[in-house]
Amino acid sequence: MHEVSSADRITDMSRFLSKKLNKLTPYTPGEQPKERTYIKLNTNESPFPPSPVAQRLARQEAGKQNLYPDPTCSDLVAAACEKLGIDKDQIIFSNGSDEVLNYAFIAFCDKDNPAVFPDITYGFYKVFADVNCVPYSEIPVKDDFSIDINDYIGINKTIFIANPNAITGINLSLSDIEKIVAGNPDNMVIVDEAYVDFGGNSAIALINKYPNLLVTQTFSKSRSLAGARLGFGVGCKDVINDLNTIKYSNNPYNINRMTMQCGIGALCDDYYFSKNCQTIIENRSYMVSELKRLGFILTDSAANFVLAKHPACGGKDLYLKLKEKGILVRHFDEDRIKDFNRITVGSMEEIKALIKALEELL
Amino acid sequence: MHEVSSADRITDMSRFLSKKLNKLTPYTPGEQPKERTYIKLNTNESPFPPSPVAQRLARQEAGKQNLYPDPTCSDLVAAACEKLGIDKDQIIFSNGSDEVLNYAFIAFCDKDNPAVFPDITYGFYKVFADVNCVPYSEIPVKDDFSIDINDYIGINKTIFIANPNAITGINLSLSDIEKIVAGNPDNMVIVDEAYVDFGGNSAIALINKYPNLLVTQTFSKSRSLAGARLGFGVGCKDVINDLNTIKYSNNPYNINRMTMQCGIGALCDDYYFSKNCQTIIENRSYMVSELKRLGFILTDSAANFVLAKHPACGGKDLYLKLKEKGILVRHFDEDRIKDFNRITVGSMEEIKALIKALEELL
Repeated sequence: MHEVSSADRITDMSRFLSKKLNKLTPYTPGEQPKERTYIKLNTNESPFPPSPVAQRLARQEAGKQNLYPDPTCSDLVAAACEKLGIDKDQIIFSNGSDEVLNYAFIAFCDKDNPAVFPDITYGFYKVFADVNCVPYSEIPVKDDFSIDINDYIGINKTIFIANPNAITGINLSLSDIEKIVAGNPDNMVIVDEAYVDFGGNSAIALINKYPNLLVTQTFSKSRSLAGARLGFGVGCKDVINDLNTIKYSNNPYNINRMTMQCGIGALCDDYYFSKNCQTIIENRSYMVSELKRLGFILTDSAANFVLAKHPACGGKDLYLKLKEKGILVRHFDEDRIKDFNRITVGSMEEIKALIKALEELL
Repeated sequence: MHEVSSADRITDMSRFLSKKLNKLTPYTPGEQPKERTYIKLNTNESPFPPSPVAQRLARQEAGKQNLYPDPTCSDLVAAACEKLGIDKDQIIFSNGSDEVLNYAFIAFCDKDNPAVFPDITYGFYKVFADVNCVPYSEIPVKDDFSIDINDYIGINKTIFIANPNAITGINLSLSDIEKIVAGNPDNMVIVDEAYVDFGGNSAIALINKYPNLLVTQTFSKSRSLAGARLGFGVGCKDVINDLNTIKYSNNPYNINRMTMQCGIGALCDDYYFSKNCQTIIENRSYMVSELKRLGFILTDSAANFVLAKHPACGGKDLYLKLKEKGILVRHFDEDRIKDFNRITVGSMEEIKALIKALEELL
């Protein structure tokens, strides 16, 4: 179980904060410094602007914002259903995929249904558990950071799996995901596919077969809309109904008008989407081969980032030296990954600047 | 205490929904029918488009959305602090004011600190309590729907007061609000000022004096940005820190880039804001005098809506007849207000159409 050190504690809490939360340690987003312009390879954003169609539709909506948005997101839902081949009651949109993941912790976890996830994964899962007072446990990934799916069969817990996995980028096959879902028929399995468009296979294909499956995706990475905040969850009708119960009890108008139009525009523009995904995949190959040439050891990433360590330079040290040179990457202090840095696959120009900086440093 | 009838129960829940939520009844937003164009006087939207400055800044941001928004909202915070005369650590922005109200239920309510609010007020408070498994009670307003502040002194509960009150529009003076805040030094008092710009006095003036005060406001009404989803909470530094702990444990990037720019633009454009508020106040006077002429009985509203009943026509009946004539107003089934309808103060043209329709109906 998760232990919070006293150093992690919130120090400036008011005396009115509920005691159930006084050990809560919030999530730390990647840094967004303003004092200088960095090459930002620390938060897995797209180096490409949003689709011109998304931009145009959003701009057209600016003058209509005196009216509330459609809480059912019906036009956006229709556009997504056509693209994904699902029914309109099988999807829920959210203010970033973090929101629908949080809804899933609220809806599907409690003392009798504790959460479980790998020890190396998206760092927000443990925060969602803590803020919702849900017990959780972490299953260690193997030494090579891959997930042993046998650890997840028949475990009577609500399972959260990022696929490709956050931080590592390692992808589980669709048949492995299916084994986990089929192996826990009495518990929800939530598959977080934030990075699926860069080389994974979506479990959305399985939703009609398994009533215990929820798949989440985001527009933040492959659709270049991190700044618009748009994500969604896909599952069987009853599961989506549960999540709508949570949404309508938290924030019925969770998606604003302009973001809704961004989403519709991004879904329309298949050519732009596919071209950008393809470019990132090609850039990742180049980046991986260059990093290997410099002696880096990497996980096999199917995402728009790599996880890399160098035998001659500590993870934090390298992070700080790159920052000094104007390049931001993401370093995590957790023991098992502290020798590594997570580096976003940027544009070819950004990658070349990274490699040049590393050549100078190493 | 709140009793949920079986008719209110969610029927299509999955078998995975946590048992703690299986009696949860979500909030019902005002209807947004698509089958025909209505004169919409049911959700207290502004009849005026957003400030041209807000629109322009939002449009300029459309192409930058591949990057995450600033989770600290620093530019928007700076603009608001200048306007409100507060420090930057005394404000938190949220995805509509519903979000910061929900954060307050999470942060400041639990079994030892139950929530309390008037029986006639914003209907979402009881839903926030239920979704967060917080016990709550309702204090009946007087027969004239006004709040007796003596009911709220020294009650050892976390108090939620909408001022002007939702549904009724009745305003408490700043000195009455201060008596409630001062009368509960060991409990948080949350003053929800969604409608304050149409005739109230903001309790923001009191935040440096009372560490147990949180004031929430929205850009949805007076700033014509219901579609952009922007609200905020103002309080002492520690209280805001608590709410940031909740925000960073739920959704650190809760405000998207374009909405942030809308907010900055709306705050810049004082002339547009003041002119629109003034127009709504004048329109309200006209609407009230016309409704009285037709025999309606009204509360004394300081908001951008009125609550009105007619001795000769039931509340639901009138709502349905107006809907048939293409005018939407809001009817609530709760016993004490079922004879009334809540009617948004629209443009002069909309009000005249409403009065004409009523003249035909009555």
